[in-house]
Amino acid sequence: MDVYQALYTTRAMRRVSAEPIPEEVLLRVLDAAIRAPSAGNEHAFRFLVVRDAETKKALQVLYREVLDELYETRYAAMAQAVRSGTADATAQRVSASANHLADHLHEVPVLLFAFGRRGGESSVFPAVWSACLAARAEGLGTTVTTLLKSRRAEVDALLGLPADAEYEMAAMVPLGRPTGRWGIAQRPALHELVYAERWGEAPVWTCAEPLWPDPVGEGAR
Amino acid sequence: MDVYQALYTTRAMRRVSAEPIPEEVLLRVLDAAIRAPSAGNEHAFRFLVVRDAETKKALQVLYREVLDELYETRYAAMAQAVRSGTADATAQRVSASANHLADHLHEVPVLLFAFGRRGGESSVFPAVWSACLAARAEGLGTTVTTLLKSRRAEVDALLGLPADAEYEMAAMVPLGRPTGRWGIAQRPALHELVYAERWGEAPVWTCAEPLWPDPVGEGAR
Repeated sequence: MDVYQALYTTRAMRRVSAEPIPEEVLLRVLDAAIRAPSAGNEHAFRFLVVRDAETKKALQVLYREVLDELYETRYAAMAQAVRSGTADATAQRVSASANHLADHLHEVPVLLFAFGRRGGESSVFPAVWSACLAARAEGLGTTVTTLLKSRRAEVDALLGLPADAEYEMAAMVPLGRPTGRWGIAQRPALHELVYAERWGEAPVWTCAEPLWPDPVGEGAR
Repeated sequence: MDVYQALYTTRAMRRVSAEPIPEEVLLRVLDAAIRAPSAGNEHAFRFLVVRDAETKKALQVLYREVLDELYETRYAAMAQAVRSGTADATAQRVSASANHLADHLHEVPVLLFAFGRRGGESSVFPAVWSACLAARAEGLGTTVTTLLKSRRAEVDALLGLPADAEYEMAAMVPLGRPTGRWGIAQRPALHELVYAERWGEAPVWTCAEPLWPDPVGEGAR
């Protein structure tokens, strides 16, 4: 798969089948992921692959509880809008897929946990994102979630993390064959996220539509 | 470029030419970068493209000072080993290229700054890494550096960041046509960075050599 296709179409896929992931596919994903850069080239990240049915079920129960708590607190307004049918289409769709994941997390074939040192997220997230991109090339859907961090003690116990561990969970990525279609995620226009020369100064160009899948021009080698 | 080639061969390239980067190439890199996921899908990252000669020179002076300070403190033992010729080949090579970058930062055609909210590095580094991968596909070298964070006040002043900005600099990426060759960076063996089912438990497989460039097998779709 072309790298631009992967960069543009690796969006959150929260609906995946229970179909197992072949060992050699998982290995390719992980082996590509660990090539990512890390602070001081110290590789201060660790992955933990969870496929055990009991562990996944226990994690699903926790995950569902956290999402329900969020629907009563931080996301209360959104949840109310979804219930009353006044939420916009995007909110309805994301809410439905988030609920689907929370109800079916234990059926996802692989739950990939990523760990880093305290405050060392800059050394973890390139590798996590590389795993998602390699998974995309293998036809596997992913979504990067940090929900379980709010139940860290219980997750650590389930995963056997020692109390004095130098590492802590930074994110969890469910991996599986998606049941939906790939597509380019909605993003703000490029010129809303990029400044030129000084903070707040818009670049001379504007760019409201994704530049891919246009053919790569002469500048490429 | 195949996504696996990008994931495996995007290593730190600290020696680049002063050749300008065509505008359309830079746009493709940035437009691909902003497709990356972010916490809550809030796109809490901003990029700032610096090409102005005076700004780059001021940043180079700061960068050189920070590296010199590190050679007297955190990296003192390594710096002494390099000076006395007792450092290993990797340390010699990294030290030489780091010094080259510090002496020539102002000649790098584009300095790409990435900003995120305080504590929000998980929303910045996927986009930063996407920029590096897209740059790789365009034949441009990158290296992710956070050295300038130790001179944040001076950098903020140079870049015009207001004192009450919600964002702060998370990393800087010099972008340019590399003068050296691409290659697979050295990493620990896969099974040293990945556990199975429980923390500290080695997976059943071992994998000491990079899996790429082997042909992608049947598991891929």
